[in-house]
Amino acid sequence: MSEKTNVCIVGSGNWGSAIAKIVGANCAALPEFEDRVTMYVYEEMIDGKKLTEIINTSHENVKYLPGHKLPANVVAVPDLVEAAKNADILIFVVPHQFIPSQCKMLLGKIKTNALAISLIKGFDKAEGGGIDLISHIITRHLNIPCAVLMGANLANEVAEGHFCETTIGCRDPKYAKTLRDLFQSENFRVVVVQDSDAVEICGALKNVVAMGAGFVDGLGLGDNTKAAVIRLGLMEMIRFVEIMYPGGKLTTFFESCGIADLITTCYGGRNRRCAEAFVKTGKTLAEIEAELLNGQKLQGPLTAEEVNYMLKSKKLEEKFPLFTAVHEICTGQIKPQCLIERIRAHPEHTQASTPAPKL
Amino acid sequence: MSEKTNVCIVGSGNWGSAIAKIVGANCAALPEFEDRVTMYVYEEMIDGKKLTEIINTSHENVKYLPGHKLPANVVAVPDLVEAAKNADILIFVVPHQFIPSQCKMLLGKIKTNALAISLIKGFDKAEGGGIDLISHIITRHLNIPCAVLMGANLANEVAEGHFCETTIGCRDPKYAKTLRDLFQSENFRVVVVQDSDAVEICGALKNVVAMGAGFVDGLGLGDNTKAAVIRLGLMEMIRFVEIMYPGGKLTTFFESCGIADLITTCYGGRNRRCAEAFVKTGKTLAEIEAELLNGQKLQGPLTAEEVNYMLKSKKLEEKFPLFTAVHEICTGQIKPQCLIERIRAHPEHTQASTPAPKL
Repeated sequence: MSEKTNVCIVGSGNWGSAIAKIVGANCAALPEFEDRVTMYVYEEMIDGKKLTEIINTSHENVKYLPGHKLPANVVAVPDLVEAAKNADILIFVVPHQFIPSQCKMLLGKIKTNALAISLIKGFDKAEGGGIDLISHIITRHLNIPCAVLMGANLANEVAEGHFCETTIGCRDPKYAKTLRDLFQSENFRVVVVQDSDAVEICGALKNVVAMGAGFVDGLGLGDNTKAAVIRLGLMEMIRFVEIMYPGGKLTTFFESCGIADLITTCYGGRNRRCAEAFVKTGKTLAEIEAELLNGQKLQGPLTAEEVNYMLKSKKLEEKFPLFTAVHEICTGQIKPQCLIERIRAHPEHTQASTPAPKL
Repeated sequence: MSEKTNVCIVGSGNWGSAIAKIVGANCAALPEFEDRVTMYVYEEMIDGKKLTEIINTSHENVKYLPGHKLPANVVAVPDLVEAAKNADILIFVVPHQFIPSQCKMLLGKIKTNALAISLIKGFDKAEGGGIDLISHIITRHLNIPCAVLMGANLANEVAEGHFCETTIGCRDPKYAKTLRDLFQSENFRVVVVQDSDAVEICGALKNVVAMGAGFVDGLGLGDNTKAAVIRLGLMEMIRFVEIMYPGGKLTTFFESCGIADLITTCYGGRNRRCAEAFVKTGKTLAEIEAELLNGQKLQGPLTAEEVNYMLKSKKLEEKFPLFTAVHEICTGQIKPQCLIERIRAHPEHTQASTPAPKL
């Protein structure tokens, strides 16, 4: 490792470009980091010019983050291995389906003591079913530790410099200061916790809850009911992590990756919007997706399916009535109107006359 | 105490009448309760008829909950002492300013082993400044224990029978079953916790956070910032309770009285709405109140002032930058635009490179 920490951003979409503004500025300003930040850019032609050339001359990602200047020390590189070979920190921010193939390309070509951090929301499907966390995939493939960064962080608002918070999950506290220095800015406030798995899984599970919140909106049940569904969803998120990824802390769910991201997703996100339209129009989710999402896939139903696979295999469906009902509604097994019936006798309520659980 | 538990509802406004639907039905259905539920109604004339007579003949509170039938076993009584004298459980649900005088009227006239439960949101000002919890006032005046019931419970939605949750805070677990049986219905789901003070203070502090959320809306800062302000507000609620009302559990903030009520208040409530209008119009809060609230008082600024008094007296303002900024904005000491500057170096962020606190 050279004296200064080299940073590579793997990815250059909307979120990758927004974070490049912050990471680039920090690497230019802080002595501990090498000024030059490489950004792996999948090469495309824009009006006859290469996207990497446009970024390296105009310092703007005209395709994915138009209207924002990237710091001049962020250098677009069209070759993944070339971009990553000197990096001490690899920031992964690509669509999750590219991770296995990119890791295969990088294996043996990067520093053995490098640290990865994943900004990728969502998850991969484990072989046979269930959820495979992106950070786990990266660690398995590259044999390096992988932290995560998640929170209520809509990319365009981050790029605009509006104040927000984010959560970094990093098992090894020795990396905490470096990661915070790399990502924190005046308006992008970082909290580092060790509960990496909990931080990452929150970002997937919130979309299941948001489907539930959207069904409530579609059914016109009002603010009380929506608040109850969001709360019960959060409780199921906590129980799910306790059982499937044990060892975490309850406080992690109070971080930006937990309640903050859940709230914005349940009031503003696309899963909520599509779930509401699903109830109101009576169309299939596939039709709604095609109409409203412009080719993108809805994460909530996919996550609900994999979560259901994991719950079923442990015979835990009854302990997670909201997650289970969302999956069954998404797959047409029950009507959206059955949602409330399913959560009425929620385990959270049957504990009612006992003191709150000690956590 | 007679064999059956006698219940009296002190109050007959919108929320009192909504809860009378549930309590009345439960007392009629469950053998442990006396069928007849008395409801103290402040007598008024409606089109030449007494309100108590209207309620006792048409079983509808035509003034405060029109369009809903009350159970026939709920009996309106215009005399407070007459209504309360046989009660084993007294449900207080009147505007908080009436509590001291009503308690004085009841002192010595009620069963000595009665239990009170307060459904009153808000608080009274302590002598000299600071917050006095309504349940504490009731206990001090009447020498009986006082539980509380709080949650994301808009009265009209509860009356409509839409599914929701509520939290009962009751120090003594021996009352937990009785209280749950009295209030729980198919669509009004009760969780009982022992943290009574935390449950009650959440209902006051949420209005301070909602003012902050409204300022963010007024400033047009977007979803990320709003989520951050709500989250930081929740963290300050937790710290405030830890310091001022110690002995509680973190889990209480995950109940309906905590996050659920906070969310609905920050997205839908009147404090949020007035705070947004305050920023957008440049009018004073008094003008906004007069225009939007039809004679009602905004709770957020009052609570912020009393909270600030308590923080100042313990030299804790800096540890609560959001609460402090909301108070200073409400009183014109700083501009709403200063809100973000104040919370940028929040104590929650300066703990960033240390592991999450053990709670």
